[in-house]
Amino acid sequence: MSGTLLVFTTDFGLVDSYAGVLKGVALGINPGLRLVDLTHQIAPQDVAQGAFVLGVSYRYFPADAIHVAVVDPGVGTVRRPVLLRTPHGFFVAPDNGLLSRVLSPYLSSAPGGAGMAELPPTVRAFHLTNPDYWLHPVSNTFHGRDIFTPAAAYLSLGVAPESLGQPVGELVWLPAPQPRWADVGVSGEIVYCDGYGNLVSNISATLLEGREVGEIRIRGRVIGRLNRTFLDADGGQGELAALVGSHGYLEIAVANGNAAAMLSAGVGERVSVTFVAQPGQ
Amino acid sequence: MSGTLLVFTTDFGLVDSYAGVLKGVALGINPGLRLVDLTHQIAPQDVAQGAFVLGVSYRYFPADAIHVAVVDPGVGTVRRPVLLRTPHGFFVAPDNGLLSRVLSPYLSSAPGGAGMAELPPTVRAFHLTNPDYWLHPVSNTFHGRDIFTPAAAYLSLGVAPESLGQPVGELVWLPAPQPRWADVGVSGEIVYCDGYGNLVSNISATLLEGREVGEIRIRGRVIGRLNRTFLDADGGQGELAALVGSHGYLEIAVANGNAAAMLSAGVGERVSVTFVAQPGQ
Amino acid sequence: MSGTLLVFTTDFGLVDSYAGVLKGVALGINPGLRLVDLTHQIAPQDVAQGAFVLGVSYRYFPADAIHVAVVDPGVGTVRRPVLLRTPHGFFVAPDNGLLSRVLSPYLSSAPGGAGMAELPPTVRAFHLTNPDYWLHPVSNTFHGRDIFTPAAAYLSLGVAPESLGQPVGELVWLPAPQPRWADVGVSGEIVYCDGYGNLVSNISATLLEGREVGEIRIRGRVIGRLNRTFLDADGGQGELAALVGSHGYLEIAVANGNAAAMLSAGVGERVSVTFVAQPGQ
Repeated sequence: MSGTLLVFTTDFGLVDSYAGVLKGVALGINPGLRLVDLTHQIAPQDVAQGAFVLGVSYRYFPADAIHVAVVDPGVGTVRRPVLLRTPHGFFVAPDNGLLSRVLSPYLSSAPGGAGMAELPPTVRAFHLTNPDYWLHPVSNTFHGRDIFTPAAAYLSLGVAPESLGQPVGELVWLPAPQPRWADVGVSGEIVYCDGYGNLVSNISATLLEGREVGEIRIRGRVIGRLNRTFLDADGGQGELAALVGSHGYLEIAVANGNAAAMLSAGVGERVSVTFVAQPGQ
Repeated sequence: MSGTLLVFTTDFGLVDSYAGVLKGVALGINPGLRLVDLTHQIAPQDVAQGAFVLGVSYRYFPADAIHVAVVDPGVGTVRRPVLLRTPHGFFVAPDNGLLSRVLSPYLSSAPGGAGMAELPPTVRAFHLTNPDYWLHPVSNTFHGRDIFTPAAAYLSLGVAPESLGQPVGELVWLPAPQPRWADVGVSGEIVYCDGYGNLVSNISATLLEGREVGEIRIRGRVIGRLNRTFLDADGGQGELAALVGSHGYLEIAVANGNAAAMLSAGVGERVSVTFVAQPGQ
Repeated sequence: MSGTLLVFTTDFGLVDSYAGVLKGVALGINPGLRLVDLTHQIAPQDVAQGAFVLGVSYRYFPADAIHVAVVDPGVGTVRRPVLLRTPHGFFVAPDNGLLSRVLSPYLSSAPGGAGMAELPPTVRAFHLTNPDYWLHPVSNTFHGRDIFTPAAAYLSLGVAPESLGQPVGELVWLPAPQPRWADVGVSGEIVYCDGYGNLVSNISATLLEGREVGEIRIRGRVIGRLNRTFLDADGGQGELAALVGSHGYLEIAVANGNAAAMLSAGVGERVSVTFVAQPGQ
């Protein structure tokens, strides 16, 4: 599969040479690979953030892309290196919950909390145990270079998943905070803050469909309506806006400004939406 | 046009996955594209800075390159998505002035201030109105992903500009600050500060040609001559230097140091050059 | 050599368009090149850091890769632009010591301090003097764009090193701090601090082999044993750990934390290792 796409999602940053070295290793194994960085700036060791970013992004890549996802505080310990094959991409990663949001759409029932998720027949997973497809000597601290990227590069050359390791029936799964229904609306929380300071909540556009939004509340501030774009906030430039963002979730933003800074708010902040009662309700 | 070059200039940053997602979308449409980042770190929503950076950089790319430029505070509002075709590249961008510096060399007369610039016959522009070449559903907040990148990728596949949208005869144009002639020299201002702290002015090398520079003044400091390199400042390491930088403009720099920090100066700071009177003048 | 790999290591940063422009220039000369960033975030003008990062990374790239390394405080002065050919890659760089760590493995005897290193027959170097393979006009401040990248791109097209310039028998070489043996162990210093805050010393894994480590001391703190992974520190999460890192050197780290911040330590900090006396010693 010359021309296969390898997509990197890591917390290696772009200051050190770690991300660059992954590419040297990948191209040393398969010179025909095309390489794309989704991001190397997941917050250090923040598995939940990595899971979120990967989860909202992978569908924009071709279904035969191979994702190398490495946020790996447990590198060198018992956590397993795994390959997950889904109808929408291959994912090579540590089995620490980083693939939870990729996995969720396929689960018939998710575990009640953090735990092992049983895999449905639509996806397959493999524990990467075959050292023939690793880079030697294998370090204890950089499996991105020594295990994950080599395994992905050999997969791109046509090596079968079954040759890379043993099939497994379960993967580690981490829950995402869920919005809750209240009498008059829905209550959720901020799950991601982007580089513009836009605060992305866990209230999906689907929850707002067919309902008329009354007010949105966050950190004591009230936003009187749902906006359509950054610039149509009631007060215009510099005013708080609430809108459905590009990830498909309710976002709190400021036109030409930074909502996180203005509100001193970040991940975990509560946000609530009230709906206008419909006739007959 | 397999192998066509797509060049990205945005304010999306490299922390979030926005820039990475553009590449997934582009390669999903044309797997043969080659992708280059000019930069994704234009200051958020700073259209003027984006216009400057694009303007001093695009000539270093092949003339058939397709530039995707997105600094787009008005995303989702009435500002038009456009394609500009010039003898030195294709540019897909919001019509908000971001292409002003690319356009200026072709204008017979620029508008007196911010406004609509009438296009000369050497360039052509199109309002991207054909949703067949967009990614659906189209969000209100991320046209880089949903309109600009898909349109550029389809263009690279050979789709005619006329199929992507309607020809337009004018584009939004923003003026750049111009240097002014004085009795004894020329006066300008800092228009860009780079990552080394070098202060780039709007006084072009052309204005200095054939003249003998006497002094350069900025923020109360006097630099006694025009330097040739960073290291030939009068006092050597740590001293202020004034030289023609790689963008072709007068720059204020510090050998092995940071001029912006040393002077507490940035964009908008005045800088003046006096010339030594020539015999006969 | 279509498909040749060009690998960039610079201090140009990713905010300005400098790194992007290099790629436009390279692809304008050889559209078939594959481009990889090792890093563009070497600390500004820090030649020693650039030499370290390049030295621990280049072996992960194919042996026919062409490295373009530019940390160049003396740009435009007498320092020479050079090409170094080794059994493990081509390196185009300013002759200011940036290639010292690439060169060291091949030197039969290194100079006693900073100075000129005589090249052994296993490597060859060339002073890049032929302006036919430069980008004109050549600036005085951006030879990365005007000399180094064009020379590398023409090399990738098959232009012989002998055509690019004159053979030279010596290159500038900078010493690296060396660990010292003491009665009870070995003493070294921190030579690199990565983005996680891991403190990388100059005590190589080789020095520890076959010996039983007693204690590791840094900045008044004592670490009681050599750890195998980040997470097996005695106190677990948040505790100091000492381990052999992915560069092959002793590193001081904190499980899920930042050792540089916790210790307020950086490059130059002393670190010492005591060995447990072996029976018979």
